[in-house]
Amino acid sequence: MSSLIFQEKKLRAFTESVFLAMGCSNTHSALAADVLLASDLRGIDSHGVARLSGYIRLWKKKRINATPDIKVVHETATTATVDGDGGLGLVVAPFAMQIAMEKAEKYGSGWVAVRNSNHFGIAGYHAMQAVSRDMIGIAMTNASPLVAPTFTTERLLGTNPMCYAFPAGKYPPVVVDMATAAAANGKLEIAQREQKNIPAGWVQTHTGDSTTDAHALKAGGSLLPLGSDREHGSHKGFGLSATVDILTSILSGANYGPWVPPFVAFLDPLPDLPGEGIGHFHGAMRIDGFRPAADFKHHMDNWIERFKSAKPINPDQPVIIPGEPEVEAEKVRKLEGIPLSEPVVKDLGELAVMLGIGKLEE
Amino acid sequence: MSSLIFQEKKLRAFTESVFLAMGCSNTHSALAADVLLASDLRGIDSHGVARLSGYIRLWKKKRINATPDIKVVHETATTATVDGDGGLGLVVAPFAMQIAMEKAEKYGSGWVAVRNSNHFGIAGYHAMQAVSRDMIGIAMTNASPLVAPTFTTERLLGTNPMCYAFPAGKYPPVVVDMATAAAANGKLEIAQREQKNIPAGWVQTHTGDSTTDAHALKAGGSLLPLGSDREHGSHKGFGLSATVDILTSILSGANYGPWVPPFVAFLDPLPDLPGEGIGHFHGAMRIDGFRPAADFKHHMDNWIERFKSAKPINPDQPVIIPGEPEVEAEKVRKLEGIPLSEPVVKDLGELAVMLGIGKLEE
Repeated sequence: MSSLIFQEKKLRAFTESVFLAMGCSNTHSALAADVLLASDLRGIDSHGVARLSGYIRLWKKKRINATPDIKVVHETATTATVDGDGGLGLVVAPFAMQIAMEKAEKYGSGWVAVRNSNHFGIAGYHAMQAVSRDMIGIAMTNASPLVAPTFTTERLLGTNPMCYAFPAGKYPPVVVDMATAAAANGKLEIAQREQKNIPAGWVQTHTGDSTTDAHALKAGGSLLPLGSDREHGSHKGFGLSATVDILTSILSGANYGPWVPPFVAFLDPLPDLPGEGIGHFHGAMRIDGFRPAADFKHHMDNWIERFKSAKPINPDQPVIIPGEPEVEAEKVRKLEGIPLSEPVVKDLGELAVMLGIGKLEE
Repeated sequence: MSSLIFQEKKLRAFTESVFLAMGCSNTHSALAADVLLASDLRGIDSHGVARLSGYIRLWKKKRINATPDIKVVHETATTATVDGDGGLGLVVAPFAMQIAMEKAEKYGSGWVAVRNSNHFGIAGYHAMQAVSRDMIGIAMTNASPLVAPTFTTERLLGTNPMCYAFPAGKYPPVVVDMATAAAANGKLEIAQREQKNIPAGWVQTHTGDSTTDAHALKAGGSLLPLGSDREHGSHKGFGLSATVDILTSILSGANYGPWVPPFVAFLDPLPDLPGEGIGHFHGAMRIDGFRPAADFKHHMDNWIERFKSAKPINPDQPVIIPGEPEVEAEKVRKLEGIPLSEPVVKDLGELAVMLGIGKLEE
């Protein structure tokens, strides 16, 4: 599929203008755009500006509040619960991450559970805020249900990502940012566009059978947890996803399991929700709460060098350090611009017309 | 394979006598026995008394210190680093978990990294200590290298387990206690004894090829991360294992990656180790640091009920809540006794003779 290239600056300005048109404040518009641009720059095309029209559709249905009163509703020295007031996760999550880091600054660590929020972009953006402060950053979110736990056909969990970000010394931070499903929905969409089959182990049919049909999820199937089947540890992927669901939502008072509100505006939330909005969980720990930061970074560099120099199975494919491909993508895209696929460009064009804002320029 | 049944009380007394013969204090012997018995009672046979002779062999090689001076070497209000002085992980980890919980009691959360330790039994024992205090408990450890990251043939990581334990209301706690490899070594040993093949995706050969040979690990192969191959997300399993390695050891000053000392006494540690012993990481968070504990437990019960009642693929196999099989095993084994396989019974008999202690009675 062909794509067009956009410079970061212009794409950022357009994205801000979309949030401003929604009624977001200048500060919130700039912040929300920064989260989305970080995703596009880092090569995670599924979580960047491609999501803008989805946010707008939810806002039109009054499921996103453009002027939220985000506040702490419960607190101890090192823990807090934040109510996002139905705002964009793109602005609610940075608010929570900031509190976690302030608590860590004072007490060594800080932990913030968030309710009444929405999709927060890439987990990595939030966790990485801690790294420049010589802290370990943690961010998780639950998500609308697409994944079936081991042994059932029901979609009870989202792809529920978790991210851990660790500062290094002379190398970029190690950033483990991963969905807890075997494969995310974006990979199915690519296979659908290319009219290809998918590997067995990504999706099961509505009867719980293995399938290679890229359309099986749309036909009532479900994504599988990391591990794919019981024999290969899908109960572990289920356990990880459950951990994210509990930390983000049972701890905060958000919705959990099958009650997490859908990310798509054409599906209504279930009746009788047990919580409010979707949930996040953020953490920060000062490295020097455990050992001097310079020692930690020295050994992180040693760890990275040892793993990168491991004997490859295929000489052309060395071990990839978590976060490394995103750093490489960012270098290229900062210089050469961000490629957007034709359907996304078309979508953003329609959005500009609908909102009466200037169109996106290459 | 046939097995003999032992009552908990007698097995516990025997286990304590082994640690006493090693020179451990009364308190440490009782504690170490409690950790091992918890594993046997919960049905995790690979991590209970079956490991006793391995501990003794390491002690004989002076790689386990029976009388450690375990202490905090670095501290903030909510973080600490513990040096285990080469002691049994079975006593070092409870010391660290205790500190994490005391900090959580005062400040909402507590986090303790541990260096210079040894094998700590099941992660679940340690994490679950927090549950009766209405806290979320977390425990992780790294382990001797058997797992190859995606794209290499080198064993650079252990099966590096992580555990999250969450209190519920009327139901048992939800305990996610999992190795970050696709399958643990114990499963290979069962296949070897039964002369069966293993599923592809558990192990690769020394050249990085897929195999179903249960002996491939012994022949220089390696375990695969959760996800099994790149297409099914083995980079995520690698990322999880890396997270455990960094939190337990780069943060504490323990050994990491390929330098983690082997659990078996016949393999020597590598030269020029970058740290001390193996590492753990423990955490505790007060539920009421986020919301009232009663509300949390009410929603945990609701979560458990919803997941347990999910439509099963096979009517005979409902969804299993993480931690549920272990609770069921404990009920049965408390009443009926603990089955030990013949080789384990023989091993414990030889141990009694070697140490000059009373033999294990049924």
